[in-house]
Amino acid sequence: MGKEFQYNPIDHIDVKNKMTVSELMSEYSNAGFAANALSEAVDIYTEMIERQDVTNFLSMAGAMVPAGMRKIVTGLIQDGYVDVLVTTGATLTHDAIEALGHKHHHGSSILRERGNESKIREHDEKLRDEGVDRIYNVYLPQEGFAILEDHLRSNVFPNIDREVSIREFTAELGRANSEKNGNGNGGIAAVAYECGVPIYCPGIQDSILGLQAWMYSQISSFSLNALGDMTEINDIAHNAKKRGAMIVGGGLPKNYILQAVLLTPRAYDYAVQLTGDSEHLGGLSGASLDEARSWGKLEKNAKNITVYADATITFPLVVAAARERVNG
Amino acid sequence: MGKEFQYNPIDHIDVKNKMTVSELMSEYSNAGFAANALSEAVDIYTEMIERQDVTNFLSMAGAMVPAGMRKIVTGLIQDGYVDVLVTTGATLTHDAIEALGHKHHHGSSILRERGNESKIREHDEKLRDEGVDRIYNVYLPQEGFAILEDHLRSNVFPNIDREVSIREFTAELGRANSEKNGNGNGGIAAVAYECGVPIYCPGIQDSILGLQAWMYSQISSFSLNALGDMTEINDIAHNAKKRGAMIVGGGLPKNYILQAVLLTPRAYDYAVQLTGDSEHLGGLSGASLDEARSWGKLEKNAKNITVYADATITFPLVVAAARERVNG
Amino acid sequence: MGKEFQYNPIDHIDVKNKMTVSELMSEYSNAGFAANALSEAVDIYTEMIERQDVTNFLSMAGAMVPAGMRKIVTGLIQDGYVDVLVTTGATLTHDAIEALGHKHHHGSSILRERGNESKIREHDEKLRDEGVDRIYNVYLPQEGFAILEDHLRSNVFPNIDREVSIREFTAELGRANSEKNGNGNGGIAAVAYECGVPIYCPGIQDSILGLQAWMYSQISSFSLNALGDMTEINDIAHNAKKRGAMIVGGGLPKNYILQAVLLTPRAYDYAVQLTGDSEHLGGLSGASLDEARSWGKLEKNAKNITVYADATITFPLVVAAARERVNG
Amino acid sequence: MGKEFQYNPIDHIDVKNKMTVSELMSEYSNAGFAANALSEAVDIYTEMIERQDVTNFLSMAGAMVPAGMRKIVTGLIQDGYVDVLVTTGATLTHDAIEALGHKHHHGSSILRERGNESKIREHDEKLRDEGVDRIYNVYLPQEGFAILEDHLRSNVFPNIDREVSIREFTAELGRANSEKNGNGNGGIAAVAYECGVPIYCPGIQDSILGLQAWMYSQISSFSLNALGDMTEINDIAHNAKKRGAMIVGGGLPKNYILQAVLLTPRAYDYAVQLTGDSEHLGGLSGASLDEARSWGKLEKNAKNITVYADATITFPLVVAAARERVNG
Repeated sequence: MGKEFQYNPIDHIDVKNKMTVSELMSEYSNAGFAANALSEAVDIYTEMIERQDVTNFLSMAGAMVPAGMRKIVTGLIQDGYVDVLVTTGATLTHDAIEALGHKHHHGSSILRERGNESKIREHDEKLRDEGVDRIYNVYLPQEGFAILEDHLRSNVFPNIDREVSIREFTAELGRANSEKNGNGNGGIAAVAYECGVPIYCPGIQDSILGLQAWMYSQISSFSLNALGDMTEINDIAHNAKKRGAMIVGGGLPKNYILQAVLLTPRAYDYAVQLTGDSEHLGGLSGASLDEARSWGKLEKNAKNITVYADATITFPLVVAAARERVNG
Repeated sequence: MGKEFQYNPIDHIDVKNKMTVSELMSEYSNAGFAANALSEAVDIYTEMIERQDVTNFLSMAGAMVPAGMRKIVTGLIQDGYVDVLVTTGATLTHDAIEALGHKHHHGSSILRERGNESKIREHDEKLRDEGVDRIYNVYLPQEGFAILEDHLRSNVFPNIDREVSIREFTAELGRANSEKNGNGNGGIAAVAYECGVPIYCPGIQDSILGLQAWMYSQISSFSLNALGDMTEINDIAHNAKKRGAMIVGGGLPKNYILQAVLLTPRAYDYAVQLTGDSEHLGGLSGASLDEARSWGKLEKNAKNITVYADATITFPLVVAAARERVNG
Repeated sequence: MGKEFQYNPIDHIDVKNKMTVSELMSEYSNAGFAANALSEAVDIYTEMIERQDVTNFLSMAGAMVPAGMRKIVTGLIQDGYVDVLVTTGATLTHDAIEALGHKHHHGSSILRERGNESKIREHDEKLRDEGVDRIYNVYLPQEGFAILEDHLRSNVFPNIDREVSIREFTAELGRANSEKNGNGNGGIAAVAYECGVPIYCPGIQDSILGLQAWMYSQISSFSLNALGDMTEINDIAHNAKKRGAMIVGGGLPKNYILQAVLLTPRAYDYAVQLTGDSEHLGGLSGASLDEARSWGKLEKNAKNITVYADATITFPLVVAAARERVNG
Repeated sequence: MGKEFQYNPIDHIDVKNKMTVSELMSEYSNAGFAANALSEAVDIYTEMIERQDVTNFLSMAGAMVPAGMRKIVTGLIQDGYVDVLVTTGATLTHDAIEALGHKHHHGSSILRERGNESKIREHDEKLRDEGVDRIYNVYLPQEGFAILEDHLRSNVFPNIDREVSIREFTAELGRANSEKNGNGNGGIAAVAYECGVPIYCPGIQDSILGLQAWMYSQISSFSLNALGDMTEINDIAHNAKKRGAMIVGGGLPKNYILQAVLLTPRAYDYAVQLTGDSEHLGGLSGASLDEARSWGKLEKNAKNITVYADATITFPLVVAAARERVNG
């Protein structure tokens, strides 16, 4: 072994006082296991958003608005770091409810005062009686859904009372959310609308937003064309010089951005996946990015890394550190 | 404590020679942890499929055809144990490829001869060159997709050259698959078609099938109405006497069957969830069924259980044991 | 591709009425993902216990007695399928408490009647007041510990009032448990004693049993030599013709049987690992057996498989199926 | 609902340029799910190490030295934030090898250049031939073990050639490591020795260090008393004014610090658990701290939180943020 051993030594993470997030993430490059992967994710994402020639696709699954990730996404969009957003109907539902002045809530003040992790889970029947929907440790009062229905019927659907693509629907939702809140304050759909960033949402009918769309379609000329925006997303992928994928969680959003390159001559050049799912289940959500390479969804020499850890922890870290580096 | 202690003792699993699957699952009721939950899942599922007044919804996410679960599903459909199937575009793609005589493959003969778990993962670039797509430890030769394209363009799309609902599309796919193979042999979509079981697939565009649908829509009058079948699934839920949900994996299929009761006066009376995902991530896929109770998706007194373990192991066990009991 | 494609097709699991466990596990060989691994685990374990020339090491971590696995282990020992058992102090504590006529209990009758998964977790403070210790969804009345103390001080420690090895202690515990219950009825330690199977327990002090041992050592000549039985286990490994490892859960027991071959010329020829832990954490408990191969703990051509799924589900399945095959 | 709704709204994480780690962790208090738990972990740990009247127990399982966490631990010890350390024999082995000038290595330069996550796992047989042991994605050249043997036989064992407690052994190891490197530079055991912090290691025989201890015991008067240091750790717990537990990973170290309060009138007042394990497996490593409350290991009103996420990511974050706050 000895001097010809070709691997780099692990030098250990060194914590210093008042470190910035980027500084700590640089220290993580000295670590092994998931900490090392996280550091590499920062490196790759920095390059993705710093290079002018990269078209950035962001996919986001999981209840990321209830989880508190809304401003991170709007910030990325506003600063030009997202060219395409693919997410779920649930995320757009949660985002719209907040655009209407309603909030998600920390599940229990008891939890936070008492440190009792289980208390939060005990009252699902009681919550039902109180009209509160639970999303793990976050509460959403059901009255938000009634307000959302009013908003959609007053401000959104009437303007698209015809067959539209899902992207046209999400854009109109964004426009209405933006109008309610003023520039920059209306949340993910609003800011995406303001910045001209398309939001694709392939399974939108699987959400409260989708239920509302369906009910409105019963009494109007409104309908959603499931295939109506696939030309757009494929063209964006096709016309890009370089392609970057930031994949937060798995599910449809993950695959939808990956499959957008299947019909282009070139695949993703960069890909970062932040997921708490596990590879060994065999499902797409936990699948490694190498698996995607076999399908031709990643270039053979793409820079890619998967961080197998809770995305509510890793996503803000990667964004904070990469943005700090880009801002110099 | 002593005699007034109100809990049932754990008596331990007793393994006997030539036990049937149902007998072993009954022994699991003596166990704790996930084994106990699995036993309860068998009890609940048995009741769900045995009672004549229960309308059974089956959701299935994850690559369950490559995983080898195809016959289990077709068997359930053929024997009347599935009234509604909700799945992914990927599952219908994999199912159709097999209906065309192509196969998924065990990832590596080396793996199976040598017991070397890692060998299977090493060749993603090589697989790319060889035209083989990898799904964890399963291989799918890409030529299957070309055959699928021919099938769709010859036998499926021309018959629905108009705006159709996604369910109409999956039914036509099932009809064509059935025709190719003869009654009972064409796989999930085919058997569902033969038995009049609707297949809903809310995010179908997120799959090779969806890509093919989009490409065909470019050169024809064919289009897919994203909202076109929501009345149907809501009506089925509404008109049912009792509602049962068998949830295999999470994702869109899970939520789509759960949300089908949101607009009905009554929610699910039975629910079994088999998932390898974790609750602590906060996402829907790993969410407990109690969380669904807060949303009114389950009756307060519903019988429900989640088995947090790999569904490729638990699904066949639950089906085999429940069917054995129903067959008496 | 076509006919020269060298991989075996996936034929799908076929469920038949009144299948035996072994028959279903054979069907799993047609599956992918974890189901396939489970089938291979049955094949390997069958060979391990069927061959006369294999010395079988069983490691068991996790609360497997509260989980209901006690009879499975005693059955394996009684039929000669375990030559060495390595487990935790907690397992021997739980086993001894049951040998004294006390029971673990299903956590909540509410749970089982109502299907409410969360109810079981809500009363930890109340349980504390009631003198009930919780192990996930299993309850253990604390009075069992007082009875255990009496047993140890009356029937166990006085006979080994000197410096002994941990194996001598576990054997004396087994003898006393056996005497209390009669041949074959005293549980894991008792049956191991009756059959001359040594139980090693490297971290025994980390348990109620260890606390009791320490307290007794304060008032007697009793002490435990931490290194006192390492010659034995290394000699057993050294003298074996073939070595087989059945690893249930991870932790110390896993590594202790693996390291037993580090000083022998030959390593394990067979290894089956059943674990719910994940490889990506980098810890030993979820580490693949291939990693062990790099350390020389497995022969290069060993037959080995890891099943990444809940061991309370997979362990009884593998044992039931392998025993059925051995019994013909 | 409305104004009487008693829960706090989720305000979303706001990322600002050049944020310090503590600032970002404060933002996480606006989040839900694991991000929220992480923020609470920082709050609790800050209080634990800031208060003069808290005796701090640190448990550490998993391969945390290969993972790059060595300096974090030595820093905490040197600044007085650790009063008792409980860890594994493997950690002390890895720590000692580095104290002798040897290194762990990033598993593959290919990995880092090419972004190919799977390449790292492919060569376990080749690694065996090259004398390299793999720990997930970290490599350890086996020659380190020979150097360790020399060190132990020359500098450690001769000074304790009698029956000693495990703590005496780890202290002597620390002394020797310290002597080799000079004050502050010898790693975990060395710095703990310099600072008078005891290291308990209940399962030490399950490690290379344990194998070496056993071999030396064969040719000398050296032996290890398994129970020899339990009075010490129990006395420390008993005499503390307040007790705090920082639990990194699970395993024996976790339980050993928790059980140290079982015989004291008061239990832990603070507890932070950072683990990638899952609660639903039923094992101790993933068990919630509420479960520990039922056992009386935590005070009913203890401040406690579990962060279910990879500890190699969360541990440095919590330490960096808490230390920043303490330093003001």
